[in-house]
Amino acid sequence: MSKLTTNTAATEENQFSEVRAKATLAKKSAGAMNRLTTAQKNKALLAMAEALVSHTEELIAANSDDLQRGRELGTSESLLDRLKLTEERIGAIAEGLRQIAELPDPVGDMLEQIERPNGLRIEKIRVPLGVIGIIYEARPNVTVDAAGLCLKTGNPVVLRGGSAALASNRKIIEVLQQALDTTAVPREALQLIEDSDRASVNEMLTLNGLLDVIIPRGGRSLIQNVVQNATVPVIETGAGVCHTYLDATADTQMAEAITLNAKVQRPSVCNSMETLLVHADFAQAHLTSLAERFRDAGVELRGCARTRALVPWAVTATEEDYGTEYNDYIMNVKVVDHLDEALEHIARYGTLHSECIVTEDKAHAERFLQEVDAAAVYHNASTRFTDGFEFGFGAEIGISTQKLHARGPMGLPALTSTKYRVYGTGQIRE
Amino acid sequence: MSKLTTNTAATEENQFSEVRAKATLAKKSAGAMNRLTTAQKNKALLAMAEALVSHTEELIAANSDDLQRGRELGTSESLLDRLKLTEERIGAIAEGLRQIAELPDPVGDMLEQIERPNGLRIEKIRVPLGVIGIIYEARPNVTVDAAGLCLKTGNPVVLRGGSAALASNRKIIEVLQQALDTTAVPREALQLIEDSDRASVNEMLTLNGLLDVIIPRGGRSLIQNVVQNATVPVIETGAGVCHTYLDATADTQMAEAITLNAKVQRPSVCNSMETLLVHADFAQAHLTSLAERFRDAGVELRGCARTRALVPWAVTATEEDYGTEYNDYIMNVKVVDHLDEALEHIARYGTLHSECIVTEDKAHAERFLQEVDAAAVYHNASTRFTDGFEFGFGAEIGISTQKLHARGPMGLPALTSTKYRVYGTGQIRE
Repeated sequence: MSKLTTNTAATEENQFSEVRAKATLAKKSAGAMNRLTTAQKNKALLAMAEALVSHTEELIAANSDDLQRGRELGTSESLLDRLKLTEERIGAIAEGLRQIAELPDPVGDMLEQIERPNGLRIEKIRVPLGVIGIIYEARPNVTVDAAGLCLKTGNPVVLRGGSAALASNRKIIEVLQQALDTTAVPREALQLIEDSDRASVNEMLTLNGLLDVIIPRGGRSLIQNVVQNATVPVIETGAGVCHTYLDATADTQMAEAITLNAKVQRPSVCNSMETLLVHADFAQAHLTSLAERFRDAGVELRGCARTRALVPWAVTATEEDYGTEYNDYIMNVKVVDHLDEALEHIARYGTLHSECIVTEDKAHAERFLQEVDAAAVYHNASTRFTDGFEFGFGAEIGISTQKLHARGPMGLPALTSTKYRVYGTGQIRE
Repeated sequence: MSKLTTNTAATEENQFSEVRAKATLAKKSAGAMNRLTTAQKNKALLAMAEALVSHTEELIAANSDDLQRGRELGTSESLLDRLKLTEERIGAIAEGLRQIAELPDPVGDMLEQIERPNGLRIEKIRVPLGVIGIIYEARPNVTVDAAGLCLKTGNPVVLRGGSAALASNRKIIEVLQQALDTTAVPREALQLIEDSDRASVNEMLTLNGLLDVIIPRGGRSLIQNVVQNATVPVIETGAGVCHTYLDATADTQMAEAITLNAKVQRPSVCNSMETLLVHADFAQAHLTSLAERFRDAGVELRGCARTRALVPWAVTATEEDYGTEYNDYIMNVKVVDHLDEALEHIARYGTLHSECIVTEDKAHAERFLQEVDAAAVYHNASTRFTDGFEFGFGAEIGISTQKLHARGPMGLPALTSTKYRVYGTGQIRE
């Protein structure tokens, strides 16, 4: 039961483990990282971008080892495609680093200034968060992206990617560390865990004192493992059972455009729609034809009884279906009698990610935006916009689905903490 | 090892436990709490204050049961004093609620407004955090204070106080819930766990989905249990091994006033000083006389060899002493050769709480404030100021010693999350 016991045992066992050794190196670099100027960090980001491009051939060679091992293991084509590096993709990844260099540096920003009656002057300043652990799956672009975002915010990073991308990640980190050697950024700030055993993930989760935060990026089981087992603070990301509610007064064309976009523009991502809620009046008038559009787009519909009365080819939705994040060409449809029923359904099955109402009724829109508890709530726009780039942040480290620290798309400020600097002239407390 | 298993098992076992039942009631009230106006919340706070005062006799009677049980169990006088309610103390507790009513309501504040090129209008709004679990020890004033702060920010609260104060807490909650019945605030938003078994704490820690955050308030073992075992997000508070560094150029009078204040004004609290670091030059000139002042104040000194050469009556400080939060009339003293040595000592033994430099050298002050990693860093002022009231927040739910979400003294905004409201006119993602 006690994680304390587990943690202490782990500490003793793994005194010289790869994870502990690398996290210790990262931690030791935190002071130097905190002292870097914005110019020094940007120069390092550009050097990293340049190095990736100039080592394209080596990167592709390392990546082809991963791809070959993947094929031998029978990995699906879609996963192999995510894993694959090409000259064009490496160029795009490098360009991502250059864009991070262009973004304003949040570190050092003064968020508050307080003058107290006793003369104390208090400043609240943004500072780096500390050592960030990132646990993710088989996309080598995440390795570079996460490294860039953490470096820009002065945070050392310990990366633990999926074993399927190990050869690629190893080469990427080698290239990036070499690039850092020509800059003011210590190479120790960039660490890759190569141990592909699951135990290395679990060791990271309880590395309190060395890691300041862990951010999981990936599928549900990866995220659940982190949330359930970490004693290090976690920023939970990703799971999204998103709804769109078509109110009685929804504009027909808008309803169709928004729901199709939310479902099929990219079904595999967390901000895509899983369940369509439809007011009975709108359903009566338009659901049959709307359903046709989804069928044309290759979407399987799972409906309630009232949906099936209007769309006989839809299969019956189960209780479990309403709680499922399909990330696929499948969608639940439920007819409701009023806004309250839609709100109740979302409160029950939603994952606090992104929820939308399509309506011409302003009072209904305001109630929906006020009462739905989610990171992002939409009136008359696709839930697919929940994204750091779409929100104008210029970057995204993930989409937080928790309420602490950061909620929704996380840009650079989500990778910072704060510190109070207090200037006195000898004040003591009475 | 897996908390997931533990958690699932707990769910099945405790389907009808007090903790789960009360957390469920609290959760159900979250929607209504979110819809309250500031005026409604303030009215409830004033009604609660009034009710406490008008039930003073009953509260004192219930409290005397706790005191008697405490005496029978051999509880120390200082703990009994913390537990004790008097007419005056109840008046002060009620006044605290009235002060919370006076504070600005952070809920609904617009933190950002973004206009996107595609016409989307995005607002970042402060919203309640959700259901807050507070786990604390034997001070009945915390029951009222935490209830008031959570209510003001629209958060239902599940309180789990120490068993030593159970009769007092039960009566307080009864009085407060009755008061709420005359207001727009649902009584379900205020829950007290009466089960004094440790298992009720552990059950709270894994109540994901019902509790949104847990805030422990109390001693080190309580906080460590929460941090180590919670799967619900936690805001860690409290532990403080705070340092004051007297630089070579420190003003002698200021050094004496600040260090004495930091140590003895109230040694039992987390922002008091545990270790004094002294530059060798300052030590040579002033440490012997400064030590006398501490001896006069009843403070035991534990020193390094160089300290003991100047202060022969000091005992030898051990490695363990430097990491100990005494919360008592005991202090470590260490002589260092330069600022870097002080910074290294703090990095090694500090708990990221409050750290101070006394110096007339501005460059040294700036380096200290920049490089020390702590919630609050001071130049020429006592660390005792790390406090929500002293910072001018008008309230304090605790002092966060973690870097996520909130850091340092936490006022009302620390009890809020945010939400993005997105207003569209049919936008879809390309």
